[in-house]
Amino acid sequence: MSGTASSSLQDHPLALPLFAPNRFRGKLIIVEGIDGSGKSTQLALLSQWLRSQSIAVAFSEWNSSPLVRQTMRRGKRKKMFTPTTFSLLHATDFADRMERYILPLLKAGAVVCADRYAYTAFARDVARGVDRQWVRRLYGFALRPNLSFYFRVPLDVALGRILGGRNAIKYYEAGMDLELSRNVEESFRIFQGRILHEYEAMTQEMGFQVIDATLSIEEQQQQMRSIVRKKLGKSLQIGTLQDGERRKNGSEEISTVL
Amino acid sequence: MSGTASSSLQDHPLALPLFAPNRFRGKLIIVEGIDGSGKSTQLALLSQWLRSQSIAVAFSEWNSSPLVRQTMRRGKRKKMFTPTTFSLLHATDFADRMERYILPLLKAGAVVCADRYAYTAFARDVARGVDRQWVRRLYGFALRPNLSFYFRVPLDVALGRILGGRNAIKYYEAGMDLELSRNVEESFRIFQGRILHEYEAMTQEMGFQVIDATLSIEEQQQQMRSIVRKKLGKSLQIGTLQDGERRKNGSEEISTVL
Repeated sequence: MSGTASSSLQDHPLALPLFAPNRFRGKLIIVEGIDGSGKSTQLALLSQWLRSQSIAVAFSEWNSSPLVRQTMRRGKRKKMFTPTTFSLLHATDFADRMERYILPLLKAGAVVCADRYAYTAFARDVARGVDRQWVRRLYGFALRPNLSFYFRVPLDVALGRILGGRNAIKYYEAGMDLELSRNVEESFRIFQGRILHEYEAMTQEMGFQVIDATLSIEEQQQQMRSIVRKKLGKSLQIGTLQDGERRKNGSEEISTVL
Repeated sequence: MSGTASSSLQDHPLALPLFAPNRFRGKLIIVEGIDGSGKSTQLALLSQWLRSQSIAVAFSEWNSSPLVRQTMRRGKRKKMFTPTTFSLLHATDFADRMERYILPLLKAGAVVCADRYAYTAFARDVARGVDRQWVRRLYGFALRPNLSFYFRVPLDVALGRILGGRNAIKYYEAGMDLELSRNVEESFRIFQGRILHEYEAMTQEMGFQVIDATLSIEEQQQQMRSIVRKKLGKSLQIGTLQDGERRKNGSEEISTVL
């Protein structure tokens, strides 16, 4: 088992050099957490704020590359995936976005906000039974994010948000391929519990900035902004002005590099 | 010449445990070599012979899984691949065939004859600039073949066979994505040369049975059969009868396990 490291990768010269450092002008900010942790909302608010500071911001979502979209859809519909092929296709999607979208944006100096990153694969694929070391090496081509936020939320809170507010949970999303339970909600609960466990085990090793996702949206966002200011403020030329003062200024600067 | 039993993986305790051993009843026989080495012809002849011995034989070809076929075609047509995504999609194809076709056949006791195996990725992807260790670990889910034949052929002989006898060489096949040359044939020559170099470098490490692919078809086939008899004869209950004596006997035994 891993996840016993006491702090971030930089402090562990003996740890696997999991990702290459980001040597580009642009910065990479990523959010992680189980479904229902509220991370996407927080990332959207953060990017609005960055844009209001005249910073070029671009988004990248998990599993969104056009390269494998059709295969993903078809494979899900026909339930064709094994844990290995599911993992490999997600890595293909990620590599495509990394090399053809994220890297050029970082080179151009943009802030790239990624909703989920390789850590999602580390959590989900391992929860699906894939070898932990194998999947980590699989993503060896990825860059180390400048900031990784992890939205920590108790399983029941997240499940309440998910089960209360949306359509039916899908087959792979619920981990139904693992035959954990014939009941979709029960399967989802077990599967999300495993994923949560993997996230928690990675928190220290990967140097996640942990946000308590049971706090109010405003409180979480203040924490995120404060961390961004502290960790990246200089390189992004983020001032310490109150949020409102420069609101909307520069919102036309949204990156269209790609 | 190398590639004898003395250089097999088992004799190299310090080598990476690249593949898991095949613990199933069935046997896995694979052929490797650059385009134009004649390996597919030889594998077809070998499988005919095995079938004539009443042995259940199944085939698996490189890049043939239905899972990623459409993505492959579209990506090639639109030139969408990076070396990483090209490599990952081939691994996805391979994993799909491995887990849903080859493994069940081996469990059922069939002989699986694979035209190209992970070594093709090790040669081609590295020739394309992908990290050598990364791609080897990528295929960590594969089984170690019971017999791996490598058809050694000088570059010019192979090129003569390819360029003389077929349609236009395709974009990725010629390594045109690497911008080695604007001339397709020249690019193909350089790219195949790199692949050949990778194969040669792997020969001892991977325990290839090396066949001189400049010999006559008949001579090569006799060598293959002799090696199969020697290495797998008992487990396959291959007799030492002359080939003709049991010819066609049992040809209806062609495996239809899947």
